[in-house]
Amino acid sequence: MTGTGRLAAARRFFPILEWGKTYNRDTLTNDAVAAVIVTIMLIPQSLAYALLAGLPAEVGLYASILPLVAYAIFGTSRALAVGPVAVVSLMTAAAVGNIAAQGTAEYIAAAVILAFLSGLMLLVMGVFRLGFLANFLSHPVIAGFISASGILIAASQLGQILGIKAGGHNLVELLHGIVANIGQTNPITLAIGAGATAFLFWVRKGLKPMLLGAGVAPRLADILAKAGPVAAVAVTTLLAWGLGLADRGVAIVGDIPQGLPPFTLPQFDADIWMSLAGSAALISVIGFVESVSVAQTLAAKKRQRIDPDQELVGLGASNIASALSGGYPVTGGFARSVVNFDAGAETPAAGAFTAVGILLAALLLTPLLYFLPKATLAATIIVAVLSLVDLGIVRRTWAYSKADFFAVSATILLTLGFGVETGVSAGVLLSIVLFLYKTSRPHVAEVGLVPGTQHFRNIRRHRVETDPSIVTIRIDESLYFANARYLEDFIYDRVVGDRAIRHVVLMCSAVNEIDMSALESLEALNHRLNEIGIRLHLSEVKGPVMDRLERTHFLDELSGRVFLSQFEAMRALQPGGETGPAPLRC
Amino acid sequence: MTGTGRLAAARRFFPILEWGKTYNRDTLTNDAVAAVIVTIMLIPQSLAYALLAGLPAEVGLYASILPLVAYAIFGTSRALAVGPVAVVSLMTAAAVGNIAAQGTAEYIAAAVILAFLSGLMLLVMGVFRLGFLANFLSHPVIAGFISASGILIAASQLGQILGIKAGGHNLVELLHGIVANIGQTNPITLAIGAGATAFLFWVRKGLKPMLLGAGVAPRLADILAKAGPVAAVAVTTLLAWGLGLADRGVAIVGDIPQGLPPFTLPQFDADIWMSLAGSAALISVIGFVESVSVAQTLAAKKRQRIDPDQELVGLGASNIASALSGGYPVTGGFARSVVNFDAGAETPAAGAFTAVGILLAALLLTPLLYFLPKATLAATIIVAVLSLVDLGIVRRTWAYSKADFFAVSATILLTLGFGVETGVSAGVLLSIVLFLYKTSRPHVAEVGLVPGTQHFRNIRRHRVETDPSIVTIRIDESLYFANARYLEDFIYDRVVGDRAIRHVVLMCSAVNEIDMSALESLEALNHRLNEIGIRLHLSEVKGPVMDRLERTHFLDELSGRVFLSQFEAMRALQPGGETGPAPLRC
Repeated sequence: MTGTGRLAAARRFFPILEWGKTYNRDTLTNDAVAAVIVTIMLIPQSLAYALLAGLPAEVGLYASILPLVAYAIFGTSRALAVGPVAVVSLMTAAAVGNIAAQGTAEYIAAAVILAFLSGLMLLVMGVFRLGFLANFLSHPVIAGFISASGILIAASQLGQILGIKAGGHNLVELLHGIVANIGQTNPITLAIGAGATAFLFWVRKGLKPMLLGAGVAPRLADILAKAGPVAAVAVTTLLAWGLGLADRGVAIVGDIPQGLPPFTLPQFDADIWMSLAGSAALISVIGFVESVSVAQTLAAKKRQRIDPDQELVGLGASNIASALSGGYPVTGGFARSVVNFDAGAETPAAGAFTAVGILLAALLLTPLLYFLPKATLAATIIVAVLSLVDLGIVRRTWAYSKADFFAVSATILLTLGFGVETGVSAGVLLSIVLFLYKTSRPHVAEVGLVPGTQHFRNIRRHRVETDPSIVTIRIDESLYFANARYLEDFIYDRVVGDRAIRHVVLMCSAVNEIDMSALESLEALNHRLNEIGIRLHLSEVKGPVMDRLERTHFLDELSGRVFLSQFEAMRALQPGGETGPAPLRC
Repeated sequence: MTGTGRLAAARRFFPILEWGKTYNRDTLTNDAVAAVIVTIMLIPQSLAYALLAGLPAEVGLYASILPLVAYAIFGTSRALAVGPVAVVSLMTAAAVGNIAAQGTAEYIAAAVILAFLSGLMLLVMGVFRLGFLANFLSHPVIAGFISASGILIAASQLGQILGIKAGGHNLVELLHGIVANIGQTNPITLAIGAGATAFLFWVRKGLKPMLLGAGVAPRLADILAKAGPVAAVAVTTLLAWGLGLADRGVAIVGDIPQGLPPFTLPQFDADIWMSLAGSAALISVIGFVESVSVAQTLAAKKRQRIDPDQELVGLGASNIASALSGGYPVTGGFARSVVNFDAGAETPAAGAFTAVGILLAALLLTPLLYFLPKATLAATIIVAVLSLVDLGIVRRTWAYSKADFFAVSATILLTLGFGVETGVSAGVLLSIVLFLYKTSRPHVAEVGLVPGTQHFRNIRRHRVETDPSIVTIRIDESLYFANARYLEDFIYDRVVGDRAIRHVVLMCSAVNEIDMSALESLEALNHRLNEIGIRLHLSEVKGPVMDRLERTHFLDELSGRVFLSQFEAMRALQPGGETGPAPLRC
């Protein structure tokens, strides 16, 4: 490898070498301001999401330090804010809950392994440029999955708001737990939880317009609105401390260890690795899809590009960093990244500065959070995730595409009814199966000539000219194994009873490929039609398709000809038209 | 339901009502002659295939009586000969071998359950018209699977030819067994086996031409050639009896119970049913595909049609009949059906007559088969299956389509290395995955105007006219979730660095569908391009695609226009060309 080649490769794997070159004081200031705002937003979120994942609150802080530094080195998005996010936290709880009980050391160790496995998978996908695999999650399936996860997450937090125990991995279990224990509701917890929720909703919808109306500068109004959760945390913590609410049954966060994230090595246990591998793959792909879509949206606004395969490397490094520092699976968060972008972040360094902010919080602030009511964190989660819920996708797909509607409905219902892993797996499989089903029954039309033109259109939709001895069939799909027999059947059904037919022309203008199965079907068709005195012709075959057909014996054996255009075919084959034994190839 | 409706439905489910109407003495004679020839061919085959499946020889006869009658009532092919076949027998051995040992009552009972399950599945698929599912087996995968199975079967019979024990479900196990025990070869068995094999190959290749050369009538020569296996059976049985070969270590068939097939009910054991369900599904689909392809070939020769969904009902009824009469899974045999057709069979009644022939054999002939050497049956199997082996498919796919080549190679190698079930499952999955992969990276070309025409072609292949402010992209694939992001990326990559661009036109002539994901991608594309001052246009959108787009807000939000033809788009968008704010819709 030449020096230049090495440098290019280094720049691909270390985007920091690229943007670092032009880093200056202005960029530094902008990144630092964005980092302060994101830090304020991230502290309560990281604690809350860790609890959602069934982990101690400090694990959320740990997952918000080194992973951000790793992403700053390897990531390509200039605005993506990495860390614990709601959906991945819920998926972590579902995955780890299968192999250990919450509150045990095994549970925490399994979360570390999950982050490590997920990081490895992302890294491998990135190095082998397998980012395209994520494309097999259709948009409606992801949208349905995120919405259903949002509902599940909100339901899972209701127990904290009420101050009762209510766990479960699907809506039925969650609601059942709430109904069964609702009698033990703690009124003070409920007051704090409901109050915080109402306050946060008001901050979200009403505060910023009010501040703007009062003449506050837009940027400051924005920062104050984003600080809402911090205010809720501060006020309820003070209340809990001042009024001694912990003694009156209000669950508080309690002792959060003060200090640097621990250095952890994921333990190697083949059984645990095997049983977490499927979940790690799902978490990786879902996290990647969410992260890359927000990164792309933000990059496009500044006419920048991200490299999805390098994003895999960046997120992989983040998750491995998380595993090595006592964290759990992380990815790019939607709301957080938008805040980062709007606050003026210019480079991934903003993420590294955020990491410093969280590190300071872990070192200094944790004693202050001792009396923080868990209900307050539940309120921040509920308000955050309800913005993810958008069931309009069900209505939109119903109007636009029934296949998508079935896939999205199944995803939502199965996620709510059977949990996140079943839901998203079934959604992905179903959307692939429906796609295959559609392509296996392609649109096939018999066409005729539109009078006075050279255009051929569907005989069922248009008044067209046809000849009783010629049947022209247009196939609106590539020919491959799943639809080869369908076409054969369609043509046999058409010709069997009609003894006037002498020619069948396949119009191939929408055929982008003919695979081996379809080629063999065409050979069989040619042979069988020939046996009953019908010649098979092709028209408007595309260049690349023709190139491959010419490598076979098919064109030699074809009883008819290959025409450049359908009009030419019609003219040549009509009784009295130009005929000739030598087939014309194009 | 009206009387006529009831009758039509009855005719659909009982094709016998249709062909029975015109049955007369001529048809009867032709069917009877064909039945005699098929019976002669089927007796040794049914015994041999039962042994291949690891079952007692008489089970092969049982599977050749009631199933044929059931098919005669429910089947639509007029020439298909149903019964035990080589590949399905091998698959039965693999499936049943997983849950019971050969020679036990459980093994036989499991084979009955397998036939019953397979029959039920076929019946359900037929009633719900799910025959299209079989289309997901690509031709090369089937061809590779059948060839590899033929090799496995031939290898599995080598032990019988040598007179040694050598079992296994893949080539490694089989060859290992042969090498380990080759020292115990029984020379007399080897002489009989090798002699019978050589004789049968000669009958197949040399006898008919010789008879024709000697002036024998073609039809008689044909029958004599088909009777080769019967001659081998008769001669070697006589030798074994006359020379007392059983006492000298030659394995003989031994006692075959004389009489009617037993009435059996498949035992209901949920565990066994569950563990056989996957195998039953594979056997059903493979059997159906093989059967329907030979049935279609033969029907087409007489300009007849078969109904694939009713074929499922016919084969389902056959397998249930097999299960109820002590048999094992059956399907339409290739060689046997061709013989039936060539011998003049005109209706499914020929199958019923064959059943009578086999019934007579079961009642009367079995004592005569006591001394039949197993090596002779092994020879008939080897000669029959080697005609299935056609490894040319590997070369043909290599030349024509690399995706098909990988699918067929994997199928062959995995079938040989890991057995039939792994091989065919992997082949089917791989061919689907490769198809999805191909469609996820569609052919996308930037096109320009061919001077002096209205045609647009790839700028990389042709010398064409373009305008620096207009980029025209032609997509040669339907747009769906797996390729939506690919197209987005392609376009961003194209426009990001080129500040001259004002218009992007998507030429949709080969786009047969735009699903919800692709629609959202187009919306995002439109939005993002608009933000950087580029307008997005579509051209040559197909009618059904346009119909659906009109049900969304996309066309209202589209920054550009929808043009009927690409030429029109070029003319309107070129600087100085016709422009207008009102979008033209077609």
